[in-house]
Amino acid sequence: MLLSTIAQHLGLEFAGEDLEITGVNTLEAALETELSFLANPKYASKLAETKAGAVVCTADQAENVQRALISENPYFDFARCVAIFAKPQGEMKGISELAFIDPTATIADDVTVYPHAFIGPRATIGSGTVIFPGCYIGEDSTIGADCILYPNAVLMAETTVGDDCIIHAGVVLGGDGFGFAPTEHGVQKIPQIGTVTIGNDVEIGANTTIDRAVLGSTSVGDATKIDNLVMLGHNVEMGSNCLIVSQVGISGSTKIGNGVVMAGQAGIAGHLNIGDGATVGPKTGVGKDIPAGVTMAGMPAMEKGIFMRHTTLSPKIPDLFKRVKQLEKEIEALKK
Amino acid sequence: MLLSTIAQHLGLEFAGEDLEITGVNTLEAALETELSFLANPKYASKLAETKAGAVVCTADQAENVQRALISENPYFDFARCVAIFAKPQGEMKGISELAFIDPTATIADDVTVYPHAFIGPRATIGSGTVIFPGCYIGEDSTIGADCILYPNAVLMAETTVGDDCIIHAGVVLGGDGFGFAPTEHGVQKIPQIGTVTIGNDVEIGANTTIDRAVLGSTSVGDATKIDNLVMLGHNVEMGSNCLIVSQVGISGSTKIGNGVVMAGQAGIAGHLNIGDGATVGPKTGVGKDIPAGVTMAGMPAMEKGIFMRHTTLSPKIPDLFKRVKQLEKEIEALKK
Amino acid sequence: MLLSTIAQHLGLEFAGEDLEITGVNTLEAALETELSFLANPKYASKLAETKAGAVVCTADQAENVQRALISENPYFDFARCVAIFAKPQGEMKGISELAFIDPTATIADDVTVYPHAFIGPRATIGSGTVIFPGCYIGEDSTIGADCILYPNAVLMAETTVGDDCIIHAGVVLGGDGFGFAPTEHGVQKIPQIGTVTIGNDVEIGANTTIDRAVLGSTSVGDATKIDNLVMLGHNVEMGSNCLIVSQVGISGSTKIGNGVVMAGQAGIAGHLNIGDGATVGPKTGVGKDIPAGVTMAGMPAMEKGIFMRHTTLSPKIPDLFKRVKQLEKEIEALKK
Repeated sequence: MLLSTIAQHLGLEFAGEDLEITGVNTLEAALETELSFLANPKYASKLAETKAGAVVCTADQAENVQRALISENPYFDFARCVAIFAKPQGEMKGISELAFIDPTATIADDVTVYPHAFIGPRATIGSGTVIFPGCYIGEDSTIGADCILYPNAVLMAETTVGDDCIIHAGVVLGGDGFGFAPTEHGVQKIPQIGTVTIGNDVEIGANTTIDRAVLGSTSVGDATKIDNLVMLGHNVEMGSNCLIVSQVGISGSTKIGNGVVMAGQAGIAGHLNIGDGATVGPKTGVGKDIPAGVTMAGMPAMEKGIFMRHTTLSPKIPDLFKRVKQLEKEIEALKK
Repeated sequence: MLLSTIAQHLGLEFAGEDLEITGVNTLEAALETELSFLANPKYASKLAETKAGAVVCTADQAENVQRALISENPYFDFARCVAIFAKPQGEMKGISELAFIDPTATIADDVTVYPHAFIGPRATIGSGTVIFPGCYIGEDSTIGADCILYPNAVLMAETTVGDDCIIHAGVVLGGDGFGFAPTEHGVQKIPQIGTVTIGNDVEIGANTTIDRAVLGSTSVGDATKIDNLVMLGHNVEMGSNCLIVSQVGISGSTKIGNGVVMAGQAGIAGHLNIGDGATVGPKTGVGKDIPAGVTMAGMPAMEKGIFMRHTTLSPKIPDLFKRVKQLEKEIEALKK
Repeated sequence: MLLSTIAQHLGLEFAGEDLEITGVNTLEAALETELSFLANPKYASKLAETKAGAVVCTADQAENVQRALISENPYFDFARCVAIFAKPQGEMKGISELAFIDPTATIADDVTVYPHAFIGPRATIGSGTVIFPGCYIGEDSTIGADCILYPNAVLMAETTVGDDCIIHAGVVLGGDGFGFAPTEHGVQKIPQIGTVTIGNDVEIGANTTIDRAVLGSTSVGDATKIDNLVMLGHNVEMGSNCLIVSQVGISGSTKIGNGVVMAGQAGIAGHLNIGDGATVGPKTGVGKDIPAGVTMAGMPAMEKGIFMRHTTLSPKIPDLFKRVKQLEKEIEALKK
């Protein structure tokens, strides 16, 4: 594809001679016919050495490269360039005869169902959606339009997924929440009769699990992105535009606002409120509500400023014990 | 179903006029024909506002509601009410022709096997058990009566599961333990020739993995409940009536007593003994044995009382450094 | 199998009368016809009580047992003995008619493909490899010779796996990395068009996920062993001979050297360099580069020596606050 065509397609100006672009790559690895990008000015020195045929960059960097696609947000516009060259996973079209589809299911036009998928009674699959092999769509589940369910994703009964969602391999939506009533003779299972509701434009990473509610619904808002191996307990209510990184765990009934970011391996206790725009650092253990906009880190969670000082001081604690011991000696001497 | 019928079914008294009950719900969301519950007196003020047609509660709360199902353990009895209205997942019956069942397998009466399940040589499946799509039951495995194996659950060869167990989607039982012998030229895999043995009435959450033993058996006792994404290493021996919350990891050969509770994301080192009734807090890192009945928390694990003080004091440590510095100055001044 | 045959097979000497060996076991559990081992001299006292018919041990222990297989590395040689008695999982041979194999795929001789597996366009499967039920091999993926892919393992498109690899049940290789460009109107997905490349003799534990690169390749070197429920982010480059224990998470673009060991639930931030032979303790949170050969532990990570002192002192911190308060009082008194 010609650089000029890409520029036109994205509504960007380009500087330099036109060129046939064969792909996208990093500044280090790009070939002479590939397109690269400079998002962080810190790496501007790499422009001198790159072989890239063209670079997506801000206007002030355009003269440092052979050809530029000029952008106010180079990282975003590079993402759009990558999308041009990206190939979707899988090559089948239509409904495989090796899939099991219950006769009461409603399958829109232009749906792809791979071999060995299972679509249960009264399930509804929206137009353009692709269901890879080994997926299980339980009875009365609803999936919107233009979704992708990668291999072996599982939606238990009555799960709802909006439009334009990506559900990665091995995801489990709507398994039973972990709910038991204590009795004198051990615990009694509380049947989990609620559901899971996923908004539009949500992405859920490989092997992540989101449990069905005990009553009502566990929910994830529009445009929220969840990484691999995350756990959302029953009745969690998560807002829109959140970013939840790998291996995070959120306990039951916690409410997460909009635009919340949680870094890897963070854990959130149950029945909490996490305010809009809050940020939770990696490995942080949250046991209390977080107000909107606040950043917490550490175990137990502290405001980030305190945590940073804590981090600096932690390795000095052994020395602090020595200093206190020394002080005690000196006071003893002084008292004498 | 009439309230009177529910009361009779559960052996409870009811107060107020009879009513056709259509479902169960929270006090906030219940409709006028739904049944709700009050388990924690802290929420008693909600009784004034609920629309619920009837409430499971203790005798002293009965006069505050329109209709009451009187219970000494309202949470437990509400769980039993939910069970009345709960619908099992899946609607198939019998053995699907799209499943693969080895001719040497023994399948009891009244077993359901969904399409695309695989049951290997000499496997045994007990009466009333349901095997969802994509499950793999390896050779010489034994599953008891009235179990449910949700989609894509995997039991590698020679795994044993008792009666009345629930194995959620994506669970892997009997994968190889992580065992290697160091040599001069890198590590050598130690074949894992042991098994996994699961008791009766055990529940195992989605995408949890329990490794087979190197020799002997990794085991989980009766009525133990394990949440999602938990990892049990080879030769772990877990007792009965334990509650293991999501994302816990237990390293090889550790012995867990009966009635042990582990909160989310806790980690237990290998070759330890965790006593009966011990409790491990969230995100706790356990490196030593825990005596029976003791509660540990923190990383590294401490007795809970110390951890709680630690939690309160942690954010004040930066200030403590300042105080010690000030003391050092003052002592220096005094010495002069 | 005769003890003499085993000795000959492994190139070891044996002491004592010959015996028909029926299996391998621990010193405690071994029967009179079973082989056991003593690797750690700490447990030498168990030799007096074992019923084992023969023991793999060092020359100096040989006179304490009825029959000995004499070894300079008993743990390693016992692993080799176990391998003699180990039975591979699964009993099928050849290509099942219930598998889906794209006509453009290249399947070498002596490959086994189980029912309900899916092999996509232009995939290549090397000689002797076994693909269990429910596996998904995406288009243009390449798997070497003598690999095992256990049930429901997923290789998304263009994944490369070397020879002699073991991919356990539920593993997902090549799911999209977690990459989004922030914009004024929420985040924009960055298509992940790179791949995953796994070396030779690699083992990957159940339900582990390794994401495809945004550009280039996420890679794992030869003979590296990865446990269950581990997460490797996009563009991670891991060296050879590493041991990565369960539930570890490694963020995007981090480079891991050769011979690195990471204990359970450790977490590594993105864009870091972890040097050859470094060790990361359990639950450790790594936010900075680690030089070659260094051992880090704790959250935040510290050198192990400091962490150990920290661990000892942590429970004494509440007391330290009291001591400082006392000092402050005494100084105040002295000043007066």
